[in-house]
Amino acid sequence: MKVVSLLSGGIDSTTLLYYLLSKGWEVKALIFNYGQRHSKEVELARRIVERVNVKYEVVDISNIKNLISSGSLTGRKEVPEGHYTDENQKLTIVPNRNMIMLAIAVGHAVKLKYDAVVFGAHSNDRAIYPDCRPAFVNDLDRAIIDATEERVELLAPFINKTKDEIVRLGSELKVPFHMTWSCYKGGEYHCGKCATCVERKEAFKLAGITDPTVYEK
Amino acid sequence: MKVVSLLSGGIDSTTLLYYLLSKGWEVKALIFNYGQRHSKEVELARRIVERVNVKYEVVDISNIKNLISSGSLTGRKEVPEGHYTDENQKLTIVPNRNMIMLAIAVGHAVKLKYDAVVFGAHSNDRAIYPDCRPAFVNDLDRAIIDATEERVELLAPFINKTKDEIVRLGSELKVPFHMTWSCYKGGEYHCGKCATCVERKEAFKLAGITDPTVYEK
Repeated sequence: MKVVSLLSGGIDSTTLLYYLLSKGWEVKALIFNYGQRHSKEVELARRIVERVNVKYEVVDISNIKNLISSGSLTGRKEVPEGHYTDENQKLTIVPNRNMIMLAIAVGHAVKLKYDAVVFGAHSNDRAIYPDCRPAFVNDLDRAIIDATEERVELLAPFINKTKDEIVRLGSELKVPFHMTWSCYKGGEYHCGKCATCVERKEAFKLAGITDPTVYEK
Repeated sequence: MKVVSLLSGGIDSTTLLYYLLSKGWEVKALIFNYGQRHSKEVELARRIVERVNVKYEVVDISNIKNLISSGSLTGRKEVPEGHYTDENQKLTIVPNRNMIMLAIAVGHAVKLKYDAVVFGAHSNDRAIYPDCRPAFVNDLDRAIIDATEERVELLAPFINKTKDEIVRLGSELKVPFHMTWSCYKGGEYHCGKCATCVERKEAFKLAGITDPTVYEK
């Protein structure tokens, strides 16, 4: 199986990459720069693919930033602190981001004659991000199969896994968690307070795995 | 109804724009530069929206060109002459182009709080372009509804119209056909020989409408 996989450099997409490689699949990673607040994410993702010696491309779609987003992931608004399911986390939604990245990945898979596009949506994401839910994955998969005349399909192997299950799997696969980045802020260390930091901490705790992350004091 | 509409500056998307305005809908046009061989298309589309005084944006996604395409619409290959349904016309496919443009348009519609995204796929396109078929439109519509929590839907009002029916409709709506551009080559005049020129000529002929296009001798 040959697949194009989205890589953000977070725990989920990095574990996904290791999982795909463990199955012996050929993987091309796409790292998107969509005008994130900080470019740290892109740089760390690049280090991860270089570590496992996987082909990759950094895809710059930052010039559509103003068109699609007024959220805090790309704009000037403050990154909210607190838990993911809080109402204020809606600020962290970049509308339709997954469909945009997946659509480009499908075009690339057609060009490479690869079989599928893969991304790391998981069940914790469902509460807040509609484009991480099973119905979205199923319906977009159908549209992709239509658009490519059955040459490419969409896979989301973690769609029914919780984040702590992903941490456990990553631990078995020897994912270098210390190289992954979750924090919405681009500081030297993880802030420990924004939703994605809170979720990261919880996942390690629930998984019973030592969290190697350095959090700000 | 408020809609984001894709505009290439060809007969179909221009007639679609006039059709949407005739219904009294508020329209925002998106003109994509995806690294076409020639920028004439973008320039002419811009003149059309300025003529009808519609808000628009030119969206530059040309830096994903190398990622998705080796076809003749964006690359160095010769534009093939002949009829659309010929095998050599597959060279004019930019893989997954419609899904990429529509996904970005959906993100923009969410930001604007608009109700739908619209594009001009029609029944003549079906033979060659899989992402112009009703199944694709239906399945992508479902994925868009999922991804936006029912805030945005996908419309393709011409999906069951032939191109000559679109020409007849455009004629009733006083579409300035002389301002539209179809030719895959970027010459001063329409070449009259590439598939889209052949289809353009045929559509006017079948519609019984005088073709105002100047073709190369």
